[in-house]
Amino acid sequence: MSNAPTKREAQIVADPDVPTITITREFDAPPEKVYLAWAEPELVKQWMGPRSIDMQIHTWECRTGGSYRYDAQRDGEAVAHFFGSFHEAVPGERLVQTFGFEELPGAVALETMTFEPLDDGRRCRIVAVSVVDSMEAQAGMMASGMEVGIQEGYEKLDELLASGGVR
Amino acid sequence: MSNAPTKREAQIVADPDVPTITITREFDAPPEKVYLAWAEPELVKQWMGPRSIDMQIHTWECRTGGSYRYDAQRDGEAVAHFFGSFHEAVPGERLVQTFGFEELPGAVALETMTFEPLDDGRRCRIVAVSVVDSMEAQAGMMASGMEVGIQEGYEKLDELLASGGVR
Repeated sequence: MSNAPTKREAQIVADPDVPTITITREFDAPPEKVYLAWAEPELVKQWMGPRSIDMQIHTWECRTGGSYRYDAQRDGEAVAHFFGSFHEAVPGERLVQTFGFEELPGAVALETMTFEPLDDGRRCRIVAVSVVDSMEAQAGMMASGMEVGIQEGYEKLDELLASGGVR
Repeated sequence: MSNAPTKREAQIVADPDVPTITITREFDAPPEKVYLAWAEPELVKQWMGPRSIDMQIHTWECRTGGSYRYDAQRDGEAVAHFFGSFHEAVPGERLVQTFGFEELPGAVALETMTFEPLDDGRRCRIVAVSVVDSMEAQAGMMASGMEVGIQEGYEKLDELLASGGVR
């Protein structure tokens, strides 16, 4: 492993000109391993989202043409419902998916995530570009409180990777 | 049926500020019927795309979480390969899907199509908003020659609807 310091905080940037949001984060694990943490539902539910909620996954078919559906639960009660489809899944390299929220009918984002090797593949950087169809929708996403879920989720993923939980 | 003149030509508008393309077209049939022409693969292959090509559909699962894959054939040879997923399908109302093109790896559009009733539901207007993640990608879509496929495809759909081919 490299001794270079890791950027532990995800950068979340709303483009001022087009309705995209770009999230960048580095991990101390190879891209293939970090990709697995997205691909396998039993891993996903251990880290995705804020610490205050549990993920109840109903469907998670992380393959080109697959779909997903999960609830966010707090104290055993579903507080939000998410669904989408995996447009394209290239293991260790790229994941393109839609993101919908049942509580906001019609709202949908398209996310393209790339897994870039760093330090000869011992570490990686993920770059996730989400696009929506208006600057208003972009502002709504930024105001949704998503940052807590992203930062806390990635911290949990750091812990899962460090504990050897992703093989 | 109403005697009002139909707007036979699709309007295709690239937004100057955000990377969306909006296609608007009216049809002389109820939204439920026009939706069916998108939902049933044996209907889709009779009208979608330019007159110079045939669609060979491998997969067409028009439901929330479904996927699709088809080739465009000319003289029996596949000249282009398309794939994507159906994020959400609400019969007669809304269809949200991704659109990918194997010849342009990584390029993807997200399309939200709404079916709006006109004349007490005897006719309808479809409004399809596609978004990509940069103005360059929007310009590329506009320059791709897609307009021929859209205009000729919708003319074929008019013919299919008029002939009673959609029940």
